[in-house]
Amino acid sequence: MHAQLEALQEVLLMGPGPSTVPPSIYRALAQPTIGHLDPAFISIMDNLKEQLKELMGTNNALTLPMSGTGSAGMETCFVNLVEPGDRVLILANGVFGKRMQDVATRLGAEVEVLDFAWGTPVVVEEVAARLQEHPYALVGVVHAETSTGVGNPVEAIGPLVRENGALFLVDAVTSLAGMPVPVDAWGIDALYSGTQKCLSCPPGLSPVSFSERAVNKLQAREGRVPNWYLDLTQIVNYWSGEKRSYHHTAPINMLYGLCEALALVLDEGKDAVYARHRAAHAQLAEGLQELGLTFLVEEASRLPMLNAVEIPEGVDEAALRAALLNRHRIEIGAGLGPLAGKVWRVGLMGHTARPEYVERLLTALKAEL
Amino acid sequence: MHAQLEALQEVLLMGPGPSTVPPSIYRALAQPTIGHLDPAFISIMDNLKEQLKELMGTNNALTLPMSGTGSAGMETCFVNLVEPGDRVLILANGVFGKRMQDVATRLGAEVEVLDFAWGTPVVVEEVAARLQEHPYALVGVVHAETSTGVGNPVEAIGPLVRENGALFLVDAVTSLAGMPVPVDAWGIDALYSGTQKCLSCPPGLSPVSFSERAVNKLQAREGRVPNWYLDLTQIVNYWSGEKRSYHHTAPINMLYGLCEALALVLDEGKDAVYARHRAAHAQLAEGLQELGLTFLVEEASRLPMLNAVEIPEGVDEAALRAALLNRHRIEIGAGLGPLAGKVWRVGLMGHTARPEYVERLLTALKAEL
Repeated sequence: MHAQLEALQEVLLMGPGPSTVPPSIYRALAQPTIGHLDPAFISIMDNLKEQLKELMGTNNALTLPMSGTGSAGMETCFVNLVEPGDRVLILANGVFGKRMQDVATRLGAEVEVLDFAWGTPVVVEEVAARLQEHPYALVGVVHAETSTGVGNPVEAIGPLVRENGALFLVDAVTSLAGMPVPVDAWGIDALYSGTQKCLSCPPGLSPVSFSERAVNKLQAREGRVPNWYLDLTQIVNYWSGEKRSYHHTAPINMLYGLCEALALVLDEGKDAVYARHRAAHAQLAEGLQELGLTFLVEEASRLPMLNAVEIPEGVDEAALRAALLNRHRIEIGAGLGPLAGKVWRVGLMGHTARPEYVERLLTALKAEL
Repeated sequence: MHAQLEALQEVLLMGPGPSTVPPSIYRALAQPTIGHLDPAFISIMDNLKEQLKELMGTNNALTLPMSGTGSAGMETCFVNLVEPGDRVLILANGVFGKRMQDVATRLGAEVEVLDFAWGTPVVVEEVAARLQEHPYALVGVVHAETSTGVGNPVEAIGPLVRENGALFLVDAVTSLAGMPVPVDAWGIDALYSGTQKCLSCPPGLSPVSFSERAVNKLQAREGRVPNWYLDLTQIVNYWSGEKRSYHHTAPINMLYGLCEALALVLDEGKDAVYARHRAAHAQLAEGLQELGLTFLVEEASRLPMLNAVEIPEGVDEAALRAALLNRHRIEIGAGLGPLAGKVWRVGLMGHTARPEYVERLLTALKAEL
């Protein structure tokens, strides 16, 4: 094997993703590649759809992993559901809300943004007031803002969006498999996620799910989807039906990895997995307090799996991250955008959300601070 | 590991891709995931760019793997280089030429298609005549038409396109690493490929390369690239420069696989690899002749790595493919589009292009026909 690859060593991944990958997912990735139309592979695809529906709490027939990373999932939702001139409202309080704005704008939508301060959650009352002003084609919000560590009140926003008549689009890249995201119960019409966060699979795929209302909008489009690679009107013919039609060659081994990742979560049990994330977060919070470190986000809106930790006065934040990586083989993340230099982002995602790993980070932080 | 994954068995992949993956690439895929901004990963990315430039025979600074399969590479080239109203000429003689037309049309280009019969090559004189009529923004052609087994005369078309003033876009999904594709020498301005053909890596990535002329066109765009995920004006800031900026999370383990795949090809030597493909093709041709089977394509235009074999009168083509898969663990491909039911597609790509594998296929065919 190439020397650079041979030299790779395990890192405890406690940044904003990827998270630490469990051994059986590595083994899954290295299972024999078979054809993308091989009946054995079709059967894995069928199972994958059922696993995703189970994890997402949905009966949506259109539930499948797209062949790109989480950002491709975001693009998939917008490019399939938005037409030029559509009025779109984005609820933004971090990098990924702003990315939604960027994606939708490029597609010719009339995009309005309701901005909230980074580090604070979307305020439901303000959303309600805006939604009473006029109807929207689509309202988008990020469930778990990876850039700030804020959890947004998706459950409370859902009924307001439904009343407005808009489709409700939710970014669940960081939340899925780390906290409940019951798609049907919360009235979500389009959801996308990623594999490298709480699923602890390497990056490369983006599970998406579309409600019947979303599928109706897709089928009623005036123009074709302006993106061949992400066109769900065609991709569904590869992922469902009696006769599977080739669209593009599926990323076979990555799909093995996702299948194993989903099996691990569902075998452990969704509630147990969520509880493990909450416990890891509580352990981290206690340890950080002992070290005199503080969170960016108020307790009520803190995510368990993504912790924005304020950088103490006088500490060289990049040097601390380098020391953790080089001396302790632990990766934590830097701040993004306006939070660069102000916070570290500590991820407790999926396989990483375990007491022994939190302990290892706290010990290392104590040594280096 | 999940039972479906545990049950997977090696198949000799002799279809239109994926091809059979060598053991060290599986090991590379299962190397420890590290962060997408980890200096060790940046160093692998830098090496990947150099490996790709070496394989493609180019000095193009903008040479990198996109985070999607080969079709995402096609979309990348069009969405970055074509603006609404641009006059685009596609030279089409198979599924992938027609896909270019589809992709470009969705982007609002004024698309003209010069069609050639499937199974025959693009005729240089007809291209020359068309290119004298008026200037185009871009001319696209598929080097190795995976749907028919035809090799198109890219080398002869290049100078004509340059004279016209258009950018020259080449699909090298099936040709790269199986036959020479010297990007600079042939005057190619934009090239895309895939990993699951002659590189024998699982599907999931698409290497692309843009010439300086292509980069100039990209930088001179009037509007933004209407596709966030594939926007090369942003992606280059993650793949080059002193300070790497996060765009989307790179598909880390897939990139390990590609790095190993490129190392295998370059270590063996490009010329030796191309000769191995030609030898495997010659061995197949001789064996098929003994079995009384014929090629769809005239000898002069036949690709070494993709062989369209005519289905003899009275043979149930699907039953033969199923017998090869179930009794011999060999996959060959069906015909696509108008060639469905008329040809089998036998791939001799990358690791699959070896005498022992060709022999195994010929023996199995003899037993089943």
